[in-house]
Amino acid sequence: MHDVDVVVVGAGLAGLSAARTLVGAGRTVAVLEARDRVAGRTLGGFLSNGVPVEMGGQWVGPTQLAALELIEELALKTFPTFDEGDALTVFDGNVVRYSDEDFGLPPESAAEVGRLWEQLEALASAVAVEAPWDTDGAEELDRQTLDGWLVANTEDSIARRFFRVLVPVLFSAETPELSFLHFLFYVRSGTSLETLAATTGGAQERRVLGGTHQISERMSADLGDAVRLNAVVRTIRQDESGVLVEYEGGSITAGRVVVAVPQTLAGRLRYVPPLPALRDGLTQQMPAGSVIKLQVGYDAPFWREDGLSGLVLSLDDALTVVLDNSPHDGSCGVLVGFLEGAHARTASLMGADERRELVIAALVKYFGPKAANPFDIVEQDWTAEEFTRGCYGGRLGAGVWTQYGRALAVPVGRIHWAGAETSTVWNGYMDGAIRSGYRAAAEILEKLP
Amino acid sequence: MHDVDVVVVGAGLAGLSAARTLVGAGRTVAVLEARDRVAGRTLGGFLSNGVPVEMGGQWVGPTQLAALELIEELALKTFPTFDEGDALTVFDGNVVRYSDEDFGLPPESAAEVGRLWEQLEALASAVAVEAPWDTDGAEELDRQTLDGWLVANTEDSIARRFFRVLVPVLFSAETPELSFLHFLFYVRSGTSLETLAATTGGAQERRVLGGTHQISERMSADLGDAVRLNAVVRTIRQDESGVLVEYEGGSITAGRVVVAVPQTLAGRLRYVPPLPALRDGLTQQMPAGSVIKLQVGYDAPFWREDGLSGLVLSLDDALTVVLDNSPHDGSCGVLVGFLEGAHARTASLMGADERRELVIAALVKYFGPKAANPFDIVEQDWTAEEFTRGCYGGRLGAGVWTQYGRALAVPVGRIHWAGAETSTVWNGYMDGAIRSGYRAAAEILEKLP
Repeated sequence: MHDVDVVVVGAGLAGLSAARTLVGAGRTVAVLEARDRVAGRTLGGFLSNGVPVEMGGQWVGPTQLAALELIEELALKTFPTFDEGDALTVFDGNVVRYSDEDFGLPPESAAEVGRLWEQLEALASAVAVEAPWDTDGAEELDRQTLDGWLVANTEDSIARRFFRVLVPVLFSAETPELSFLHFLFYVRSGTSLETLAATTGGAQERRVLGGTHQISERMSADLGDAVRLNAVVRTIRQDESGVLVEYEGGSITAGRVVVAVPQTLAGRLRYVPPLPALRDGLTQQMPAGSVIKLQVGYDAPFWREDGLSGLVLSLDDALTVVLDNSPHDGSCGVLVGFLEGAHARTASLMGADERRELVIAALVKYFGPKAANPFDIVEQDWTAEEFTRGCYGGRLGAGVWTQYGRALAVPVGRIHWAGAETSTVWNGYMDGAIRSGYRAAAEILEKLP
Repeated sequence: MHDVDVVVVGAGLAGLSAARTLVGAGRTVAVLEARDRVAGRTLGGFLSNGVPVEMGGQWVGPTQLAALELIEELALKTFPTFDEGDALTVFDGNVVRYSDEDFGLPPESAAEVGRLWEQLEALASAVAVEAPWDTDGAEELDRQTLDGWLVANTEDSIARRFFRVLVPVLFSAETPELSFLHFLFYVRSGTSLETLAATTGGAQERRVLGGTHQISERMSADLGDAVRLNAVVRTIRQDESGVLVEYEGGSITAGRVVVAVPQTLAGRLRYVPPLPALRDGLTQQMPAGSVIKLQVGYDAPFWREDGLSGLVLSLDDALTVVLDNSPHDGSCGVLVGFLEGAHARTASLMGADERRELVIAALVKYFGPKAANPFDIVEQDWTAEEFTRGCYGGRLGAGVWTQYGRALAVPVGRIHWAGAETSTVWNGYMDGAIRSGYRAAAEILEKLP
């Protein structure tokens, strides 16, 4: 009766994982992708010397079991992120080298950061991750922003600044933009703050040889003609008999549909009949973070010779975080840097040359004059992408979880929701995206005759 | 060369005011309206006895010069809102009658409310209303939510509750959902908090005989065939030569376009080329408030006989605010009540009967057993409306004004922005909507050859 059993909107990790599962269970699918490529917020790029670099999501780590298993199933290889030597913290004009866990901060502020960190870990561990609105004290936690909590809980200005920089590194958003409950949920969803922040032992532990976009590309290759590129979905109609998905240039019928795009974009589709108010209201309130990611290529990873790991956290600069992103074979040096949150919003208005100067000046400050002459810089401004409109993901501001959170992943009739932001485990990460696709597929397999 | 000089998207007060001005200046326009009616967030309704009641925006008051002048130009009449007798405040189970300015609160809390009120007025008066991001201390004000400010500035739990109820009455949103800077901007934009809150001398002073929707209907009648109903705009394309506006069922070319819909809906259109990141990001972060408005009809305005004005503010109940909304001729009694913010979100999930019981129980609590038997209740849930998706208007949470505010009303090429939320004067009100239409028309008249 229908053209296919299931239409999937969006060929990122979530949509492709859902489609792959459904096809594996003998169902027919069509995956409609607005872009001329698959892989969504993962995107492969190249430096001018041909070395591949990840322009979007790039790291995997322990407890990200869905991602790690899928990578293995697709016969891709991982390798450890370079993580030897000292890290740098920059504040008040000083570039401080450190190797312990004090982040190079003055002892008093380091202790205060440690105290707050422990408090945050304890509060996060108490979040009801499957239903954050049921967390003990949810309303009070959700009433506050993370910034409000910080101001109320420490007078130490360096400790405040530290978290006000660490948070954009994790969310591409600023501390006032996050509900405190959302922050705690996200930390819990990704195991712990320590896990989110760490390279070895944490979320930045490993990379995929050749780039993470291959995960999507290999799934897409297996799906063959089922994946249709340049299909900009605009309207989803549903009635008792099924769904009709209209895209620019055509339409397709199915029994069910998986909408696997960021929530803010899901809200831009037209739904007939209209979505319930709570679901619509949620999509009005999950704005995406802002990030410009830069990959800077050097002839060699010269910082390693100085005993540096390449990791930098700056409380002073727009380029707040840098990591070593050199290829596995060390054939050249690559530093990956991020302009995040407020810094991305400002830098997005600059010309490319001005942004390049800003980045190189910061790298010279961190690593010395050798950083002045990269052979190439490639950059990706995710806020400018029509079919992403911001990374890393959608965030919930004060009050949203407790009032709207219930609508995040609950199907609306024949419409199922996927995407990294709908996952209770590793929410916002590649692993969460994959899990959300599996979850949506499971929902559908249970329903389909 | 073009079908018309200007296309206007949205036939609410903003769009029609823009179109009327353009036509008055000799330009040709087409107004595309998604609904089968004009008037947007103003909507006429009737009680079962034929008495007209306003289902959306309804009051006008001093300093709302654009609205008052337009009403006069269109030969509509206004009349004063009934405002004689005592008001009621409900808290901790008590229904307290008062006639002074203490809101019936215990003296200590009343004094504290007064102190906070004065502080808010003083802070609001210092806002740079044309450019809130340039206000002294804008970043610190925008970093806080209004709730955060309250918690930091008073220990009085009744005073906190008072503002946590007053704010939804004004915004249909909760105190944590508003940037403190946005709250102050909005107050300043509408003159003062006193003006926003007051009936006589304030924003609720007068009503339009027959209903405010007639303002739009009369403008629309004058525009004749230029207004096209049931035209759901989906895509706006622009290039050097003009704009192409595509709606479901057709398309139309013009030199310029005015998008006069709430910002959250403006973000749902497709723009080719895509909008700049800052403008797109803003539309991701101006969610609409939540309100269900109820008009409750009685044979007579019986509360007046008890010396009551009909005004109620309850710190205890979901039906937080009630006013006398009887017709000018007193031919029956009407109470208008609002479920706002969190209460609207909860009540929106109830059945109509359950909601009706909740409302009547509250009215009996406030006004006694005579309130138990209305001859009719009509209600309007604005969050359920596909082409509004919430009232009273879009709000800015913490951090949005200072980072994104610049993009609110600045044209993008041939696209001009109107709507109540783009006005610097009476932002969010009917008056602001009309002013924004005039402003957008003026921008265009300056540009057109």
